[in-house]
Amino acid sequence: MNQCLGILRVVEYLKRDELKHVLKIQTTVLKTLQQFMISRGFVQLMPIVTSTLTDPLGPDPRSSVIKTPTIDYYGQRLVLTQSMILHKQLALISGLDRIFIFSPNIRLERKERIVTGKHLFEFTQMDFEIAHATMDDVMRLVEDMVVETIKAVKKYRKDELEQLERKLKVPEKPFRVYTTHEMEEEFGKDWELEASKAHTQPFWVVCHKREFYDREDPEKPGHYRNYDLVWPEGFGEALSGGEREWEYERIIRRIERDGLDKSKYEQYLELAKLGLLKPSAGAGIGIERFVRFLAGVEHVGDVQPFRRVPGEEVIV
Amino acid sequence: MNQCLGILRVVEYLKRDELKHVLKIQTTVLKTLQQFMISRGFVQLMPIVTSTLTDPLGPDPRSSVIKTPTIDYYGQRLVLTQSMILHKQLALISGLDRIFIFSPNIRLERKERIVTGKHLFEFTQMDFEIAHATMDDVMRLVEDMVVETIKAVKKYRKDELEQLERKLKVPEKPFRVYTTHEMEEEFGKDWELEASKAHTQPFWVVCHKREFYDREDPEKPGHYRNYDLVWPEGFGEALSGGEREWEYERIIRRIERDGLDKSKYEQYLELAKLGLLKPSAGAGIGIERFVRFLAGVEHVGDVQPFRRVPGEEVIV
Repeated sequence: MNQCLGILRVVEYLKRDELKHVLKIQTTVLKTLQQFMISRGFVQLMPIVTSTLTDPLGPDPRSSVIKTPTIDYYGQRLVLTQSMILHKQLALISGLDRIFIFSPNIRLERKERIVTGKHLFEFTQMDFEIAHATMDDVMRLVEDMVVETIKAVKKYRKDELEQLERKLKVPEKPFRVYTTHEMEEEFGKDWELEASKAHTQPFWVVCHKREFYDREDPEKPGHYRNYDLVWPEGFGEALSGGEREWEYERIIRRIERDGLDKSKYEQYLELAKLGLLKPSAGAGIGIERFVRFLAGVEHVGDVQPFRRVPGEEVIV
Repeated sequence: MNQCLGILRVVEYLKRDELKHVLKIQTTVLKTLQQFMISRGFVQLMPIVTSTLTDPLGPDPRSSVIKTPTIDYYGQRLVLTQSMILHKQLALISGLDRIFIFSPNIRLERKERIVTGKHLFEFTQMDFEIAHATMDDVMRLVEDMVVETIKAVKKYRKDELEQLERKLKVPEKPFRVYTTHEMEEEFGKDWELEASKAHTQPFWVVCHKREFYDREDPEKPGHYRNYDLVWPEGFGEALSGGEREWEYERIIRRIERDGLDKSKYEQYLELAKLGLLKPSAGAGIGIERFVRFLAGVEHVGDVQPFRRVPGEEVIV
């Protein structure tokens, strides 16, 4: 690519009025989320970027990362964080029962995902976990959080929303809840986008067959005590979470069923074997996707001053 | 190392009461910093972890990273962020004049640095930049920020400070200012630790010969319009910042003087050549070092649930 054209595009892109409006909305979102979590008794951790282990992102059929990036530090191979889920479980060992983190995630998505409008290979999620909580606890907390954030944006970023010609409605609680089975029946296997378009309010979709750490219903094997929040109007997935597996035998069975390499989770499994993991539930909400929805912009990459979209060359 | 012993150490480490107190103090620090910056008109950006370019961390004699870690994504070589300084300058092109970020930095420090008590190979700094600002503007802002944060911790984390047997004084503004020349004269070439021990209040040290982006005084070549804040009582460096070079010719001269590879800053230099960089000043304050000072703990690694100390094996 012509590097000079690339640079001129960067300048034009950075100078858009839209970007300034979007980043001001983002500031209100970040402030509201942090205050909300702290007001609910959460303790804030710093993110980690490197570790000996990270989220496998599989066998979730939605995942399509090409590989987990690694670096070498004095002969130790460290993976970059794809999500902090396993570390959230480990952090609860401390005795703190409510934790949250603004956590940058690196996911080297397949370049074909440039077209989805909602994928980035680098993004931040606000990740939280609550010891001894159920999915209902988390869903109610998230509904309060979403409503409070939308109210704050409508109140403090009125001008920016007007400039963006974005009308936002405060959703009514509780949000509607569907199962993935219902969604597939109505909208087909790839239900997310169509279902999102068919709604004007955020809604829950529960029971996803995915990573080993999401709890399988002990009373209904093949069903899962996890949940996604989906933004309406075609903006798609907002948040992903679940109750967690914490018992060694169940975790091992799931890892084996998924055909994952156990040696990659050695320390985590050791701690599970010692009975140190706790029953918990939590979620991660994508900041850039939340801001995209609130600002009503075309592509999630449009909210990043420095775009990190799979399939696009990184200029700066 | 015996992996099982390692795991038991992790558990013991995570369960310390000290860690819980420290992380609660950290929560108050993060909330106060964010609110302070927003109340002063700053817009919050998300961090970036990967890019085509990052801070060279040289020829600062304090820097001793073994190499800049890189990953490959569809044939594009991306470096991990050592600091967001260059991107802060680029972000100001947007027209936003006051920006801040909680930015995780990866710096593969030499393992000998395990003994300093203040080095991590992964940490977070709150990084900010102000267009058209001078060093005095930044120094006054930081003094207000530090005083406000210490007041908040004393007010909201009284119990935790008591448990940690930590007595904190609110420092008086303005903080004392020394030059590096004065420091070297009094405490020798490695003045930081001894000077820190000799003080009971945070203090400024100005005029450091370091990276090309820190502005050399046009009226006094060989002198630099930059500044470090140093915590007292032996806790050492708190914050590093400076007015910036923004003119292409001056930047090029500095890069050449430092013997750096220009091709690593191609896009940045292109933007500088187009006259798009702005005069600015800013700084980055280390969160873990701030929390370490406030909590009065031995090693900066002790504030991390998942330790990232150079020379220590990473367990999880």
